[in-house]
Amino acid sequence: METRLNRNGTVFERQSIAEMAGYVPGAQPDGLVVAKLNTNENPFPPAPAVMAALRDIPADALRRYPDPVARGFRQAAAALHGVAPEHIIATNGGDELLRLAFTTFLDPGGTVGIAEPSYSLYPVLAAIQDCRLCRAPLADDWSLASGSAAVWNAAGARLAILVNPHAPSGRLSSAAELAAVAAAFRGVLLIDEAYVDFVDPARGHDTLALIRDLPNVLLLRTMSKGYSLAGLRFAYGIGAAPLIAPMLTKTKDSYNVDAISQRLAETALRHHGHAAEGWATIRAERARLARELGARGFDCAASETNFLLATAAHETAGGAEALYRGLAARGIFVRWFDQDRLRHRLRITIGTPDENDALLAAVDALSRQA
Amino acid sequence: METRLNRNGTVFERQSIAEMAGYVPGAQPDGLVVAKLNTNENPFPPAPAVMAALRDIPADALRRYPDPVARGFRQAAAALHGVAPEHIIATNGGDELLRLAFTTFLDPGGTVGIAEPSYSLYPVLAAIQDCRLCRAPLADDWSLASGSAAVWNAAGARLAILVNPHAPSGRLSSAAELAAVAAAFRGVLLIDEAYVDFVDPARGHDTLALIRDLPNVLLLRTMSKGYSLAGLRFAYGIGAAPLIAPMLTKTKDSYNVDAISQRLAETALRHHGHAAEGWATIRAERARLARELGARGFDCAASETNFLLATAAHETAGGAEALYRGLAARGIFVRWFDQDRLRHRLRITIGTPDENDALLAAVDALSRQA
Repeated sequence: METRLNRNGTVFERQSIAEMAGYVPGAQPDGLVVAKLNTNENPFPPAPAVMAALRDIPADALRRYPDPVARGFRQAAAALHGVAPEHIIATNGGDELLRLAFTTFLDPGGTVGIAEPSYSLYPVLAAIQDCRLCRAPLADDWSLASGSAAVWNAAGARLAILVNPHAPSGRLSSAAELAAVAAAFRGVLLIDEAYVDFVDPARGHDTLALIRDLPNVLLLRTMSKGYSLAGLRFAYGIGAAPLIAPMLTKTKDSYNVDAISQRLAETALRHHGHAAEGWATIRAERARLARELGARGFDCAASETNFLLATAAHETAGGAEALYRGLAARGIFVRWFDQDRLRHRLRITIGTPDENDALLAAVDALSRQA
Repeated sequence: METRLNRNGTVFERQSIAEMAGYVPGAQPDGLVVAKLNTNENPFPPAPAVMAALRDIPADALRRYPDPVARGFRQAAAALHGVAPEHIIATNGGDELLRLAFTTFLDPGGTVGIAEPSYSLYPVLAAIQDCRLCRAPLADDWSLASGSAAVWNAAGARLAILVNPHAPSGRLSSAAELAAVAAAFRGVLLIDEAYVDFVDPARGHDTLALIRDLPNVLLLRTMSKGYSLAGLRFAYGIGAAPLIAPMLTKTKDSYNVDAISQRLAETALRHHGHAAEGWATIRAERARLARELGARGFDCAASETNFLLATAAHETAGGAEALYRGLAARGIFVRWFDQDRLRHRLRITIGTPDENDALLAAVDALSRQA
């Protein structure tokens, strides 16, 4: 089919869209899969109550439009976090909340602050909204540089995004560190807490106080990882009501979350004790895997997530990329990023005990070959 | 919670967002509902095969990320319409395709052409993207004015949107009329075919040829109405591959449609014969309801949709608004629009035969009271 040029001599898409690159999701492999440890999915199934709620969806829930503002879910989330429902917005995955933050808080041509390295979706969202990125490099230990907010302020950023615990390092910044950044930053600080469910409770990490004390903090929680519901596309934002309201009533799609996912996500939150059992297992496996990888010459950054960032030993033939490809050939899928500071590392999702054993056995086998 | 002002003296949301009004969805009434005829939902349940597919969703489909580009659904839609999958994009309801068209084809500050009256979501999407609207008024019989494309071209519109069959009138423009508009228009012409499943097959209406012949036509189909799946949030676009590709690979959210809805929507399309039986019943009821309302002094515009636009007789006490409120008090919900050319009319969704009888009985009762 021929592309007709419009009167400006370009194709129909905007010039900025034509020039940008899209986000590339982690692979969902088609062939032999021994252990899929590349996209940080939860290795355990969702709660039985969630599956029961799925079986109980009535035909009328499909036939009718859903609640446009997900009241049932928002009440459950509000009760869990000890806030009012006006502080909650439900979204079609975390990606939607990120997009809404761009749409709502950033004028076209504006600037968004991020840490570097970070989620590769942020530059994509910035390009769509014709926005510039202001990158604040993380320190060598992946901690936030103390002047990050000042860097973003100097660039005129009206929105900044941090992932905490951080991906791909797994490092946790404390609530006090985040509060200091938020207090110093003049725009909205979105804290993507996709992995917060996996933080050791002994750390006493609690960011809910931030949204009570700071009008510019927007927390992002997702059901994808902690609740084993990546297929459902359901996340939520928590923040001061004046941050939530314009997204809830103006910038989100009218019916952004469907009737089935509203019911299942609400059920999952109301049975979060089930999910929490899985989190404990994942923490124990995380510690074991870090130890076992350490014994094999890998340096694993301390992680409070459901993955490890493992630095390959220098003597590994071909480095991290060769190991990544060798593992994939054996049906073990991990993530390798072809970018600065990450090229010699692998991000490995914590799987079931059996999956983690399979990973270690494959690492051993490849090491004997090398 | 106090709103902190940013350094420009405004709240955190963009000025344009602060100034715009959000879309107001049709009410989902909480109290007594005798007949809900206000949001154009299909009165019949989805196909049994869809409900069976729902019961069969495995836990792993929830735990894993979904296919980011909905290959199974797009293959089914491509087969149904006799095109290749590259001509199809699956979206989280029709609203998402509309938003993607704005994001992909309209620079901030650009102009979008619409017909007037039309779907009240379009001005909302324009405001979010900082775009201007260029309105081409429909003729008295709701047909497209012949110079619409010229009006949009003169305003520099890069995107125009038509609903066909039209809402809220129900009028069908022919494929030839649409082709003439598309050929004359310099931007992308999005034809929102939300109601096309209800067109009488005897009309021989077929717009698929448009996307083969015209590089700037984008068709929007939804599963909400024809397939009784409004709760699922699933729609799709059909168009030339260069129109589809940037939305599919760049501007949509990475995982925009969830695993459950992909399976159910695919199943619904593969069993579209079941849905088509409902369409025939709705057409028969549409003809009956138009006759019966006509006998009661209402003038109903010829409709090829699952609703009627009924003009209240002049002698109706208080006019259409009073009738709308009187019906609601009796648990019969229809739609009334407080805007020019519509204020003396009601939009009535075609219900089941029993629901339509209940509507007529309530109209009679209110008429006796008047």
